Amino acid sequence: MRDLNEHNITDAVLESFAATPNPRLLTIIKSLVRHIHGFVKDVEPTFDEWLYAIQFLTRTGQISGQSRQEFILLSDVLGVSMLVDAINHRTPKGATETTVLGPFFVEDAPQFEHGDDLSNGTPGAPLYVDMTVAAASGEPLSDAVVDVWQSDSEGFYDVQRADLTGHNLRGRFRTGPQGELRFWSITPTAYPIPDDGPVGELLEASQRHPWRPAHLHFMISAAGYQPLVTHIFVDGDIYLDSDAVFGVKQSLIDSFPEQPAGTGPNGRIMDAPWRKLKYSFGLTPL
Amino acid sequence: MRDLNEHNITDAVLESFAATPNPRLLTIIKSLVRHIHGFVKDVEPTFDEWLYAIQFLTRTGQISGQSRQEFILLSDVLGVSMLVDAINHRTPKGATETTVLGPFFVEDAPQFEHGDDLSNGTPGAPLYVDMTVAAASGEPLSDAVVDVWQSDSEGFYDVQRADLTGHNLRGRFRTGPQGELRFWSITPTAYPIPDDGPVGELLEASQRHPWRPAHLHFMISAAGYQPLVTHIFVDGDIYLDSDAVFGVKQSLIDSFPEQPAGTGPNGRIMDAPWRKLKYSFGLTPL
Repeated sequence: MRDLNEHNITDAVLESFAATPNPRLLTIIKSLVRHIHGFVKDVEPTFDEWLYAIQFLTRTGQISGQSRQEFILLSDVLGVSMLVDAINHRTPKGATETTVLGPFFVEDAPQFEHGDDLSNGTPGAPLYVDMTVAAASGEPLSDAVVDVWQSDSEGFYDVQRADLTGHNLRGRFRTGPQGELRFWSITPTAYPIPDDGPVGELLEASQRHPWRPAHLHFMISAAGYQPLVTHIFVDGDIYLDSDAVFGVKQSLIDSFPEQPAGTGPNGRIMDAPWRKLKYSFGLTPL
Repeated sequence: MRDLNEHNITDAVLESFAATPNPRLLTIIKSLVRHIHGFVKDVEPTFDEWLYAIQFLTRTGQISGQSRQEFILLSDVLGVSMLVDAINHRTPKGATETTVLGPFFVEDAPQFEHGDDLSNGTPGAPLYVDMTVAAASGEPLSDAVVDVWQSDSEGFYDVQRADLTGHNLRGRFRTGPQGELRFWSITPTAYPIPDDGPVGELLEASQRHPWRPAHLHFMISAAGYQPLVTHIFVDGDIYLDSDAVFGVKQSLIDSFPEQPAGTGPNGRIMDAPWRKLKYSFGLTPL
């Protein structure tokens, strides 16, 4: 293994990995080496371009932390996250389509009861969510775990708010006997993904905007079914056809119809118009 | 741009970048998107594998810092650094071959004069370097800037030594009127690349060792010529055929012949055997 050049180095690198005991890891490494070398041979980077790439990746790691995951953003804006999602969710008829997890999910969201309000008084247009969880076949799923999270009316998630120490606009519920769940929140608004880091530089250099159309995040799990990670998007949003992370699916768009002021669900007195989301989620069996 | 799936998403992502004004950047991004999507379609990563990759890259960025560049190491062990080097140095006859920069070069190495000793008393087998710098055509190059750096006899560079505050075993010289340069140091030894981070995990999982054969680093620049980044390797090293970073070229191996104790160059009294490197470097015209 001496005198490697642009013609023989790829085979030499593949050979160096040949003793990898885990066959799945070996498959991944071999494909990775072939594609990275193919990319380098295609574009023939200068030394300075290579060094820029090294520094871009380093900065992408270093800006990541507790409240930000820049490599997930990079995967998102390159369409890699949605491609991985598509490959892993060839959903059957009756199952809700999936979309990206995004970087703002947290593991330990607070528990809420049916009828609770996730908004904790945060300003925004009131939203009543009336949803059910069922199997793709139609059978209602009781006691399914439903995580909900969303941005506030200025486009920020709680983990992005330096002035917030606790959780806000996120919570965990369990569905009732007929798979039902009803709760209050505020209507989500469009927002830009964080664009003051390396990913923002890439978007700006490409004249791409960083906006995502308004959506609510859902992660739903029930024993015997694949966990469902998805959003419900608000119809009419101007970014539905240019989502910075390529996540929009027609079946996940709902009109969130406006309701008049007056007496709302459970006798709640609404002094201004409010919105309602009614949606039935279908889970894919394992 | 809705309802993207594994069959149409790559084209949609390419289209999203189409307005990139810099044509070179557009070329690089298009190739990158095609190769990353190709890799994902080949290996069909699970969500957990994708998340492992995200975390691996994040850790690779976060362990990098003043004295360590883990993304360069990753590029090195995947053969990417040597491939970039090969593409950029299709050297003419008479020019010295190139190899990787490595992660331990520093910009502001101290200045030394001809005949100085880089070792500052560091233990090791004394080495006398007697070198010339010329154009590939043979014309001597005076006043060329020569950076030299190397590991100590325990295999560490100065920047890896927490107990060292200044530079050691590195320095900058200028060649004399006939392109000549002579200086003292110690004989380099084989060493492992840092293997306590993500790159070390990759090597261990692949049953690859982290060792590099013993070498001296040189970076040589002269007006009108391409900067030369290379090593000179010590013949007989057991790692010459399995360099962890794929950097060995036959033309860069020298025997560093042992010399008897007694009177050495410039009348220096040598109380033990010492080694000598005599090498002529050739630079490629711009």
